This record gives sequence, structure tokens and C-alpha cells, in this order.
Amino acid sequence: MIKLNGVYPPLPTSFTEDEDLFLSRYEENIQKLCNYDLAGILVLGSNGEMVMLSNVEKKKVYDTARKAIPGGKLMIAGTGAQSTRETISLSVMAYDSGADAVLVLNPSYYKGQMNSEVLVRFYHDVADNSPAPVIIYNMPANSGLDMDADTILRASQHHNIIGIKDSGGNLVKMATVIKNAKPGFQVFAGSASFLLPALSIGAVGGILALANIAPELCLNIYNSFYEGKHESAKEYQLAAVELNTAVTRQWGVPALKAAMDYLGFYGGPVRKPLLPISDEIRKQLIELIERTLEQ
Amino acid sequence: MIKLNGVYPPLPTSFTEDEDLFLSRYEENIQKLCNYDLAGILVLGSNGEMVMLSNVEKKKVYDTARKAIPGGKLMIAGTGAQSTRETISLSVMAYDSGADAVLVLNPSYYKGQMNSEVLVRFYHDVADNSPAPVIIYNMPANSGLDMDADTILRASQHHNIIGIKDSGGNLVKMATVIKNAKPGFQVFAGSASFLLPALSIGAVGGILALANIAPELCLNIYNSFYEGKHESAKEYQLAAVELNTAVTRQWGVPALKAAMDYLGFYGGPVRKPLLPISDEIRKQLIELIERTLEQ
Amino acid sequence: MIKLNGVYPPLPTSFTEDEDLFLSRYEENIQKLCNYDLAGILVLGSNGEMVMLSNVEKKKVYDTARKAIPGGKLMIAGTGAQSTRETISLSVMAYDSGADAVLVLNPSYYKGQMNSEVLVRFYHDVADNSPAPVIIYNMPANSGLDMDADTILRASQHHNIIGIKDSGGNLVKMATVIKNAKPGFQVFAGSASFLLPALSIGAVGGILALANIAPELCLNIYNSFYEGKHESAKEYQLAAVELNTAVTRQWGVPALKAAMDYLGFYGGPVRKPLLPISDEIRKQLIELIERTLEQ
Amino acid sequence: MIKLNGVYPPLPTSFTEDEDLFLSRYEENIQKLCNYDLAGILVLGSNGEMVMLSNVEKKKVYDTARKAIPGGKLMIAGTGAQSTRETISLSVMAYDSGADAVLVLNPSYYKGQMNSEVLVRFYHDVADNSPAPVIIYNMPANSGLDMDADTILRASQHHNIIGIKDSGGNLVKMATVIKNAKPGFQVFAGSASFLLPALSIGAVGGILALANIAPELCLNIYNSFYEGKHESAKEYQLAAVELNTAVTRQWGVPALKAAMDYLGFYGGPVRKPLLPISDEIRKQLIELIERTLEQ
Repeated sequence: MIKLNGVYPPLPTSFTEDEDLFLSRYEENIQKLCNYDLAGILVLGSNGEMVMLSNVEKKKVYDTARKAIPGGKLMIAGTGAQSTRETISLSVMAYDSGADAVLVLNPSYYKGQMNSEVLVRFYHDVADNSPAPVIIYNMPANSGLDMDADTILRASQHHNIIGIKDSGGNLVKMATVIKNAKPGFQVFAGSASFLLPALSIGAVGGILALANIAPELCLNIYNSFYEGKHESAKEYQLAAVELNTAVTRQWGVPALKAAMDYLGFYGGPVRKPLLPISDEIRKQLIELIERTLEQ
Repeated sequence: MIKLNGVYPPLPTSFTEDEDLFLSRYEENIQKLCNYDLAGILVLGSNGEMVMLSNVEKKKVYDTARKAIPGGKLMIAGTGAQSTRETISLSVMAYDSGADAVLVLNPSYYKGQMNSEVLVRFYHDVADNSPAPVIIYNMPANSGLDMDADTILRASQHHNIIGIKDSGGNLVKMATVIKNAKPGFQVFAGSASFLLPALSIGAVGGILALANIAPELCLNIYNSFYEGKHESAKEYQLAAVELNTAVTRQWGVPALKAAMDYLGFYGGPVRKPLLPISDEIRKQLIELIERTLEQ
Repeated sequence: MIKLNGVYPPLPTSFTEDEDLFLSRYEENIQKLCNYDLAGILVLGSNGEMVMLSNVEKKKVYDTARKAIPGGKLMIAGTGAQSTRETISLSVMAYDSGADAVLVLNPSYYKGQMNSEVLVRFYHDVADNSPAPVIIYNMPANSGLDMDADTILRASQHHNIIGIKDSGGNLVKMATVIKNAKPGFQVFAGSASFLLPALSIGAVGGILALANIAPELCLNIYNSFYEGKHESAKEYQLAAVELNTAVTRQWGVPALKAAMDYLGFYGGPVRKPLLPISDEIRKQLIELIERTLEQ
Repeated sequence: MIKLNGVYPPLPTSFTEDEDLFLSRYEENIQKLCNYDLAGILVLGSNGEMVMLSNVEKKKVYDTARKAIPGGKLMIAGTGAQSTRETISLSVMAYDSGADAVLVLNPSYYKGQMNSEVLVRFYHDVADNSPAPVIIYNMPANSGLDMDADTILRASQHHNIIGIKDSGGNLVKMATVIKNAKPGFQVFAGSASFLLPALSIGAVGGILALANIAPELCLNIYNSFYEGKHESAKEYQLAAVELNTAVTRQWGVPALKAAMDYLGFYGGPVRKPLLPISDEIRKQLIELIERTLEQ
């Protein structure tokens, strides 16, 4: 089973002013980020505005990413869709582009029917047909559906399902999964705001929006924990929460892209209906970046 | 402004055993339903498994529906997507196929960013660019996002936005919208379970899953209300709730399709991850159909 | 079985500036309200700040109310508490004061344990031991627990349980209860915002915060419906929503008491932690009262 | 400021078969628990069925607890009520009995009005008038109201407010509070299920239902963390989750009391509407206890 341990940024997808793909900028972002000791890149996650892209665009992004990500770094590709057939089709496509693993968000539109049986069957159907190993993706703040520990555990029994990114922040659920899953099942914190708590109970890394703009801070939490420097780990963790909240739950992808622009990456526009952050919020965001990074 | 008053079934999309489009069956369903005094057909709503279809498939369904729907009946086409650009593109496509109006679900993936400003801007951008008049679609049970009255009212001020289908069942919100919207703004009950309450406060009709399998019962509620036969209207309404719940909130599209099969329409398979209902539930469903339709 | 049909105000409890009971004012409010064609008074409901009072205070309020309510008008007394034993004790106390029926809110503190079995057993234990007939009270916005139709129906089978006040506004649930409950089971709208929709499906009246300040408007909805004047009923209903929302969900008991003060009743202070409405909100409230009552 | 660091059991209140106070048993439980290296006892928290007791009963429980708790161990007393005046009155009463600090649950019945301003004012009014230092208590699963970080931080600025027990399990909120609160503000995990994650970000201890039945396991998590034995801490934490969930969120106080009975404490009956666990659940519970404690 492929070992995924480490920190990954879920890279935003670069757009031109007309909201078209801007692949050269995307490539440059990958190159810059890969100078840090990150384990790899998540391509087309929630921060990658995956739900905004056509499948033709997705293929281009997968291909571009794979070319830009240097050997030794992993490419994880988001491939979840509302139907099983489209999820499989995207997983094959991502594998063909060279993805090392696929991150599969649960379908959620028919919430009332998405019981444990349906979700487990979905993950097993995808895992049966995906040439790349599958990572489960639980993202209740966006999908509106929070998979419970039992569903995750049942889904995880498939040999081709190797881990989970859990962005829900429920540490009790995470502990239940870690305690009861098969040996080697790899749990990732889905947000920098709870990376240290997740590591403390056995998570093996994080896929963290904050790693796009503050990779060193994220790596400091991760490395301090493994070096047994728990006071430092705590200080880094507490330093990370406010900025992470700003570019995720509070102001979202538009703020994450604005922060990237400020820090020398290419952020650029979001796709509508998302709107750019206001000047007032940009000012607050920049103050927060400065305050966080000088700590 | 086009008058939409009346009852519409949100027609399920027909699939073969391999989950491919089965357009001849879809056409037959339309022809059978159009024998009833329905105002028209909703093509590719939630019950039409819209989120499961590729855009190429959607175009085929729009075209097929328009050919099958007789003159004098309206075609409303679901065209909502997560990005503004794709929603506009689908709305143009549906108009080109001959849709009389488009039903636009709000984007909801980035829930944290979908504030009133973003949603109003989304609807106005779509309405600016859609050649067909726009009906707002609020469907919190599926989207996980419940638009408030203020957002709906601000969105509704656009000249090309002519109504709303509200499936949330919040009659207080519905009354607030009816009281404060521009003259002629048309509010539809999104479920047969609250059709009469909605009519009592000024709704002009319903887009009702139940109308696919019990069009007469739905029309009886509607007509009794307008004929001032309120005791009858109440009896029909109370008769409708349980079966409607069964084919919507409780057992969903799989049950709706099974009921269609039982009643001489083509229901056929659902697309995975949705699974067919079990034999045990099918038995309960058929008993419920019999009990409801003999009342 | 006692017939409860009609409109009831859930009377606020009057306090002095020191937040002590002000029973003479409370009495005067009852006398004024009983000049209208109301069916009776609800004593110590949510608007009566019941959860703020000691049991000694409750007894005084029950006694005062009974003396002030004229013959021919009903006294319904709120008696719900977190423990079964205290609920029974308050129900006996209210009956001894002369209550015609008791309104029993479900316990809700141990939400995780309040399953259907526990709630049905609670209502049956209370009904077995209450000398007064019991009305179920579902108030999810305050209790944080929304009883489902099945629980309500099972509880309602007890001979001493005669009705429900449902403040949740879920008309589908209300219809399910009306359709399936024993003959004569009496369902009340718990809010003026959905009185007409509730009457349209068979509710027999309403217990309405708005009836404390606009009893005529509430009676107009009720009477127009029964007289078959549905256009009028609709107009009255639409006129009522905004003010009702203001004195309930939006600004709560502090606004209801301020409105009473403005309209010649005694509103007076709320008990802390509730705080009086600000001057700015008072201004908006008064404009809204004027706009509503002149319609 | 009094230092509270350590582990506390929120002791269940002992009842006879008739559901009356059984103070001698309660005393014995305290004596047994105080043989462990616990920092003290929480008297009348959620597990103490506080909302079920009259104020006369509460006084007896406070007095009994103080007499039974040995010198050097702290007594924290739950004193929250729906009104400010009653909360103050109970806090004075608990102080008079000898409580070292009071734990004050936020009022929550009027959820719609419990905005940040109202809640901060509530806590400051209580802190102004409580002779004992105040600990904020956030318990969303029971109160139905989850105080946000900003409210907690504003409330915490009062000199007589010294900490918080947060049972919500939102580690991000907890980190935000720890990062931004005044120096010395003491944060407690409200559940053993997330004790280690909370300690990792700076919590100073836990008030833990599990400490009533598995005090050593709870102390092992706590002590391993402070001794820098992080692998052990993790193993103890993972071992604790399932049993803790069983006696809290899953089966609640009835299961906690049954576990106490099984382990040689006095559990005894719960007060209705709570019902004892079934024989089938008792069997599962005992297996789980055995499995957990032998680890």
C-alpha cells in the first residue's frame, strides 16, 4: 500500500480574467510549492473549484499537474461526482494522467437516500473500477452530508481504499476510525485548524488549504509533533487557526486566492458565482497574513 | 409574462438496464401524462436525476421532451449547475430545444460563501443571459442550502425572473415571498404534501413528484381549491401526504420509478449510487399506492 | 372530550421593574383580551416566560389567571418540565387552580435519549396522572427537539390526550397527524404565521403570540376561513406574517411585550437574561404595528 | 486565580427506587472516587441530572457533596438555570455549601434571542453576583445552543470568570479560545473522547463522564500526555472513545449509572422521563466495559 504520510496543499485551479483555465500559472504554482518539503499536491479538491470545471477541463488540469509535479512527490487527484459512472470515469482519467491516488468525495445530492448501504456500495463500486487507489473524502461543510464512522469503516474494508481525508473536524469520529480501521489505513486532517489534534490520535498527515500559502507553518506543526516538541507544536498550531479559518470557512476560496496573490503565487479570479473578496476584507486578510507569518 | 398556473410533474429520466438514456420510454411517459389536465412537464429536475447526466445527455433529453410535449403544454427545463457559466450555457441549450422557462437551482457546494449577495448576483447573471424566463428553485433537502425570503425577494426583482419552485415546505417563507414580491411573481409548491396550504396563501400551482404517478389526485386538490370546495380539497390533500412522502423524502426517486412501473408508466432503473428499493419496500409501496388511489 | 376550537393568546407574564410578578397587571391584560371573541387564554406558555418562574410563582399565576378569565372562556395552563414527576405535579397544581386543560412541552435536555419510546412513555405517564386533559406541545425552535409524526400519533392514543399545539410550522407533519390521529384529536397552529395553511388541512384553531396584540386580525383569518371567504382569509394571513415574525422568531418576547405596551396592554420588563429591545428596534416595531393594523 | 488543572468526574446523582435522593449512596460514591488522583468532583452537571432536581434537592446535594469531598480536592457545582436571577441564587447557595467554583450552563430556551450580547451580559451578571468563581459551560448536545468563540472570549474577560468546560468537541473553537483568552483562562475538555486532542492544544484538564467509571484510564491519558509519552497517550485515548461514547452520546446517563452499578459504585435508577437501559444494551455495555478495562 502506497504510503501517503505528510502535508499536501489542495491547490486552487488558476483562471484567467475571463475565468478560463490558466495552466501556465497553475504549473508555476506547483513548481514553487514543490520547493517545500511537502509530500505532494492535491489536484482538483474543493479548493481547486472542481465542481466548477467541465470534464475536458479536468483532464487538462490532471495532465498539467502531473507534468509539473516532480518525481518523489505524489499527485492525488479529486475525482468525485454525483454518479458512480462519472466518478469511475474521472478516476480512470486521472490515473491515465499519472495520479498516484484519487480522492473521492461522496455523492450527496440525494441526501435522503445516501444511507450507509448506498455510500458503502458507491465506494466499493468506485474502488473496484479505479486503477488508482482510493482515498475517501468527507467534507460536510460543502456536501451537506457527514459520513459516520461506521460507514467509513465499512467502506474502508475494500483493499483498494487506502485512507480518508476528513474535513469535518470531528476528532471523536476520527479516533473511532483510526482505532477500528484495518492496519495501514491512512487518516488525514482535512484542515490545518485541527492538524495537531489529529496527529495526536494517529492521523498521518494533512491535506490543508493553509499549505498553499503557509507551507512552512504547516510543516512546523507536523515536524514538531514527530520530533516530540509538543510545546512548539502547540504554539504553531495555535498560530495557524485564525488564518486558516479566514481562507476556508470564513471567506473561502476567494480569500485563499487573494492570499496567494499577496504572497507571490498566482491566485487570480474565482469562477462565478464565487465573487472576489472586497477591499475591506482584503485589508483584514493581509494584516492577518502578516501577523501570522511573523510569529 | 408567461402564465404558469397549474400542476406539473417533474418527470424522471428513463434509463435502460445499463443506466443509459432510454429516450423512447421517456417520450411515451410524456405522452401518457399529457392526457391529464396538467399545465406542462418539468424536464430534468431533481426527480429527473439531473445531477447524474452529462451535458450531452441533457441536450438529448431537452430535445426529446420538447418533441413529445404537445402544443399548449409548457416545458420547464432544469438548468442549474455549480458555476454561473455552466448554468447559462444549459439555459441557452434548453431554450434552443424549445423550453418555455428554465428552473434554476442555486449553487450550493461552497455553502459558506453562498450569502445573499452571491446568490442574488448569481440569479441576476443567469437571468441577464438566459433567453428563457427564469424560475428560482429552492430545494434545501437536496442542496443543503435554504435560501431565505430576503434573498428570494431580491433575486425576484429581475424582469426575467418570473417565479419560484419552493420545495422547502416553509409556508411562512412562502407567504412572505408572496406578500412582498412584484405583482405577477409566481410561487409554486415544490411538493404535493403542502400543495393546499400553499394554494391557500396564494401559490399558483405545484411542481409535484406525485403528479407523475397520481396526476388526478394532484389535480383534484388544485381544482377543488379553485372551485371553493374546501372540504374536498382538504380530503384530497390529506389523502396525498403519505404516498407523496414515500416517493420523495422517505424512499426517493427509486420509489418513484418503482411506482411508475407499477402504474403502467416506464420507471426503470435509477443511476448509481442510487439503488433500487428492496422487495420489502416495494410491497409496502404498492399497498400504499392501492390504499391512496382507491380513496 | 372538551372542544377547544378557536383562537388563544399565550399571554406574557407581567413583571415589575424588579422582575417580580405583577399580578394586577396580568389580570387587567386578561380582562382586556377577553373582550375579544377569543376561545380562552394560554397561561404560562413560552411567551409567558414559564421557564423563568419558580413553582411558587407558577401557582400564583395559575390562580390569578383563573380568577380573571370569565366563564365560558377556557384556561389552558403550561405545565411542562424536564422531569416527569415535576410535570405531573405542575399539572395537578394547574388543575387545582381551575385549568381546563394542560399544555405539556416535551422534556428535551437529554436530547440524545429522547427517542420515540421515551417521549411516548413520558406523555402517557403524565396523562395517567393529570386530572386535566393533556395537550401535547411541540416547540422545536425553543426546545431544540422536533417530535415526529409517529411519536405524536403514538402519544395521542391515550384517552386523556386531546390535542397538540405544534409551533414547528411543518404543515406536512401536521397533515400526517390530522389524517392518522383518533377522531376528535385537536390540532392547533402554534403561530399566526401559518394559521390559514393549518386550518386548510383541518386544524381547529391557533394558540398565537400575535393574538396578544392583534386579536382581531387573528380572528379575521379564523372566521374568514370558516365563512368560506378565502380571498379575505388569504389577505389577512399575508398581512399577519411580518408582525408575527417580529414578535416571535425575530425579536421574541421582548418585542411582544414592547408591542403590548404600545397598544395599551401592560407589557413591562422581561426577565433576564432576556433584554429589552433597543430603541432602534422599537421604532421599527411600531412602524410595523401601524402598517399591519391599518391594513 | 484558583488552579483547576486535572481530571474531574461529573458525578451522577443517586436516587432510590422511588426516584428520591439517596444521599448516603452519593456520599459513598464520592469517597470511592476520591481514592483516585482526581482533582475534584463536579456536583450537579448534566450527568448529575441537574435539570431534574428542585432547588431544595440541589441544596441537599451541594451540602452532602462538600462534606464528602476530602480537603485538597475541589468541588465544582453546576448552577445554571434559565433565568439570571435563579442562576445567581443557585451560585450563592452552592458557595454557601462550600463550592470552590460554579459551572454555569448558558440559558438556551429562548434560542432565537440568545445572541452574543445577551449571553455575554448573562455571564457578566452572574459573575458580578456569584461569590464563587465562574466556569462557563458549553453543552450544545443538550442545550441545543453552541456558543461561538467570540461570545466565549467576550464573556471570559470578566475577572470572576476563570475557565470553560466545552463539551461540543469543536477543537478549532477550543484552539481559538485558548489562543485569544486572557492569561490563565482554563479550558477543560467536556468529554473523554477528545481529552488528548484538547490537551495537545493547551487544555488544562477534563470534566469527563468516563471518569466516574474508568478514572484510571482518564488519568492515564492525562498523565501520559504531561510525561511526554505520546504513543501511550494515544493508545489510552483510542481505548477510551468507544466506552465513553456508550455512556454519553449513545446511551446517556442510564448507561452511565448501569456501568457504575456493574463496577461497584452505586448507579441506581434515573429519573423519568429517562428510562433504564434494556437488558440487551446492558449486555453490550458490560462487554464493552470488560474489553476497555482489560486493554
